[in-house]
Amino acid sequence: MLEELKRRVYEANMLLPKYDLVTFTWGNVSEIDRETGIFAIKPSGVDYDKLRPEDMVLVDLDGRKVEGSYNPSSDTATHVELYKAFKEVGGIVHTHSSYATSWAQAGRSIPCYGTTHADYIYGEVPCVRCLNKEEIESAYEENTGHLIVNEFKRLGKDPVAVPAVLCKNHGPFAWGKDANEAVHNAVVLEEVAKMAFRAELIEARVQPAPQELQDKHYYRKHGENAYYGQAAIK
Amino acid sequence: MLEELKRRVYEANMLLPKYDLVTFTWGNVSEIDRETGIFAIKPSGVDYDKLRPEDMVLVDLDGRKVEGSYNPSSDTATHVELYKAFKEVGGIVHTHSSYATSWAQAGRSIPCYGTTHADYIYGEVPCVRCLNKEEIESAYEENTGHLIVNEFKRLGKDPVAVPAVLCKNHGPFAWGKDANEAVHNAVVLEEVAKMAFRAELIEARVQPAPQELQDKHYYRKHGENAYYGQAAIK
Amino acid sequence: MLEELKRRVYEANMLLPKYDLVTFTWGNVSEIDRETGIFAIKPSGVDYDKLRPEDMVLVDLDGRKVEGSYNPSSDTATHVELYKAFKEVGGIVHTHSSYATSWAQAGRSIPCYGTTHADYIYGEVPCVRCLNKEEIESAYEENTGHLIVNEFKRLGKDPVAVPAVLCKNHGPFAWGKDANEAVHNAVVLEEVAKMAFRAELIEARVQPAPQELQDKHYYRKHGENAYYGQAAIK
Amino acid sequence: MLEELKRRVYEANMLLPKYDLVTFTWGNVSEIDRETGIFAIKPSGVDYDKLRPEDMVLVDLDGRKVEGSYNPSSDTATHVELYKAFKEVGGIVHTHSSYATSWAQAGRSIPCYGTTHADYIYGEVPCVRCLNKEEIESAYEENTGHLIVNEFKRLGKDPVAVPAVLCKNHGPFAWGKDANEAVHNAVVLEEVAKMAFRAELIEARVQPAPQELQDKHYYRKHGENAYYGQAAIK
Repeated sequence: MLEELKRRVYEANMLLPKYDLVTFTWGNVSEIDRETGIFAIKPSGVDYDKLRPEDMVLVDLDGRKVEGSYNPSSDTATHVELYKAFKEVGGIVHTHSSYATSWAQAGRSIPCYGTTHADYIYGEVPCVRCLNKEEIESAYEENTGHLIVNEFKRLGKDPVAVPAVLCKNHGPFAWGKDANEAVHNAVVLEEVAKMAFRAELIEARVQPAPQELQDKHYYRKHGENAYYGQAAIK
Repeated sequence: MLEELKRRVYEANMLLPKYDLVTFTWGNVSEIDRETGIFAIKPSGVDYDKLRPEDMVLVDLDGRKVEGSYNPSSDTATHVELYKAFKEVGGIVHTHSSYATSWAQAGRSIPCYGTTHADYIYGEVPCVRCLNKEEIESAYEENTGHLIVNEFKRLGKDPVAVPAVLCKNHGPFAWGKDANEAVHNAVVLEEVAKMAFRAELIEARVQPAPQELQDKHYYRKHGENAYYGQAAIK
Repeated sequence: MLEELKRRVYEANMLLPKYDLVTFTWGNVSEIDRETGIFAIKPSGVDYDKLRPEDMVLVDLDGRKVEGSYNPSSDTATHVELYKAFKEVGGIVHTHSSYATSWAQAGRSIPCYGTTHADYIYGEVPCVRCLNKEEIESAYEENTGHLIVNEFKRLGKDPVAVPAVLCKNHGPFAWGKDANEAVHNAVVLEEVAKMAFRAELIEARVQPAPQELQDKHYYRKHGENAYYGQAAIK
Repeated sequence: MLEELKRRVYEANMLLPKYDLVTFTWGNVSEIDRETGIFAIKPSGVDYDKLRPEDMVLVDLDGRKVEGSYNPSSDTATHVELYKAFKEVGGIVHTHSSYATSWAQAGRSIPCYGTTHADYIYGEVPCVRCLNKEEIESAYEENTGHLIVNEFKRLGKDPVAVPAVLCKNHGPFAWGKDANEAVHNAVVLEEVAKMAFRAELIEARVQPAPQELQDKHYYRKHGENAYYGQAAIK
């Protein structure tokens, strides 16, 4: 079932090595079919060069495997929580991409230093705290999802405008309207993390881009007045 | 019309992924035909691996589309202003190349620390200020062009000798006598930005190269006494 | 003899250039056959693109060549000492991989800043001191092995849980249950060294990941309660 | 004439893009035939992907072109001076390789922080001062050669044991017994420059490797007691 979904998720997973976002098996992409409430996700620990579309595992929003011969990604419970809370999100990706993970290890949110960032992500990419001992030992992956959702609420962040997060001492999650857009945003995040790292080393007193510039670039690409790309052709 | 121009601009655009200057669609190259006052430019937001020579958009110096089925690059108005003010410039490129953009985010001009820089760019690569709220909200891309032109005037910089600029919190523009040379200069700029970044980390008190060395290298490659390359063979 | 072992060691050696862990011939991998006490190792100074499975050299645990037309790696005596002391280790790799070697040159152990590290290595990667003049001048490579073994004892480190070490002013050794896992751990080490380098530059006061998070990730992948990957399918 | 020499120099030049040591045409390799006192060198400013063995230019030790349809490299006069003073040197390479050039721009010699360095280069890689105005304006490239030679004399450095130098605000030269070894040393230099850059960022108080370790590694590979590689097989 959902063969087309599995094919799309397979292809989005294969973009991770293509865009140099993963080492070995350190990443997973999923996409949800909102009608049935079932999502397809990469199996846990399977090499990218052995992966096939039919290996994708189908999981429902209770985290139960619906179809598939493999175990789903060990991060499946985090995907479940994000899909349940972020209704507009259709695809999710987790990686240990090198620069974004370095920021996560440093425990810092990534400030918006320029238009490369503002074109895709509205404001800083938040870094959420480490889970505490109890949260880690009870239901680690599920609690990771809860924490992200709660922090977005607390910070008043819209997951559509801020399609990425860093988990302290761990790494990034990114998302989008489907699996492909989620991976696209993970690539942007890595690029943005790289440039912010260097900008701070070039100028220790660097400041975020002025709000009006952030607005300009974000809304040049998003919302009803967007004029970037070919969308305006009718 | 201007098929040859479109082919050259197409080929120059395809050099951006080749030289690793772009992620996704984040870059655009144009070249002008000075006789007709028409330039060819990359369409907005089209993937490099789907791009064809016939997709290049023709635009005049009033910024009006003359030919093409796509929207031109969203940065077209900046190209227009640069072509209008910089008469010797025949090709322009905009990228978010990683090191140059990091300097732009840091808001710093790139000092000339060595001969790699001096061989192509006379003196520092200036970083122009951010546009203010009014400039951003009225005609952002056009005002970006105005600002660059005005700053070059104010600083007494010759755009032929300084074929690149950084826009604060945004990224670099580079140019040259045609599209190919513009891309060539964008590659040089990225390389120069990378080395300057590292030189400052190696030695915090690093100083620009002595003026006489900058002169020597620049004029070894440019002007009537140039002796680099094969130009002298007649 | 031991043709299968030589083939595996050959293939593991060829992973070093594939994963970008070596320049020229700066690396060597071995694997031991514990029944015979003989290990296969790369010949010294032979180019990777000329290497053949039959070029692997067989050596016993007294460091004597048992078979092979080439000299074994100049680091053979270090491998011997590690195999003698670390009974669970079946494969060993030495490289000058760029980030790990930079940490070794700096003389610092690599703290565990995140789950990428904790997934494979329990606690920090220790950097052992330089050998002294006497140790260097008598039996350098053998003494390198002694020092690693003694330091692991002194620090109470289990070589299965900490499958890598840095030798000050020199570079890393990594190991695993066989040659392939040893190389896998060398790749992890390089990635971990890279991220720790950047994390410290992003945040000077960065702290190691909380112990409970390190435990969670290490035991998610190792030991009887592991649930990462497909091992649990029976 | 000297077809074999030209072929070897051509092949050594083609290693520069292979090992990622050059951008565009920023590099040149030569090799001398000591019997005739003639060396072959890359033509100036010719693209690597258009280069052919027969394009190599033959030059004598007075710097006069002996054969070839192109101009020789603009750095030819530096090669001449090095060949005249360093009798054991058979091949010379100049690049603007990224890390080595960053150290040159910073104006710092590269300390020997580890065995990767000590295996090939005995002690630090010296950075010679900038030429003064007079030296630059009279015979720049020749004076660059004089300065390197004089500095090696002043510092008591043997060009065989120290096969590389940095020219302040410019970039590196490396050499060896032939063109191939010169390029090999240029690769080592770049790697060593990269690791030293990182080691200092990891530990600000990093110290050079102890002299006895430098000696051990250098003499493990060089001189009559060398035992690295297959040289000992007779």
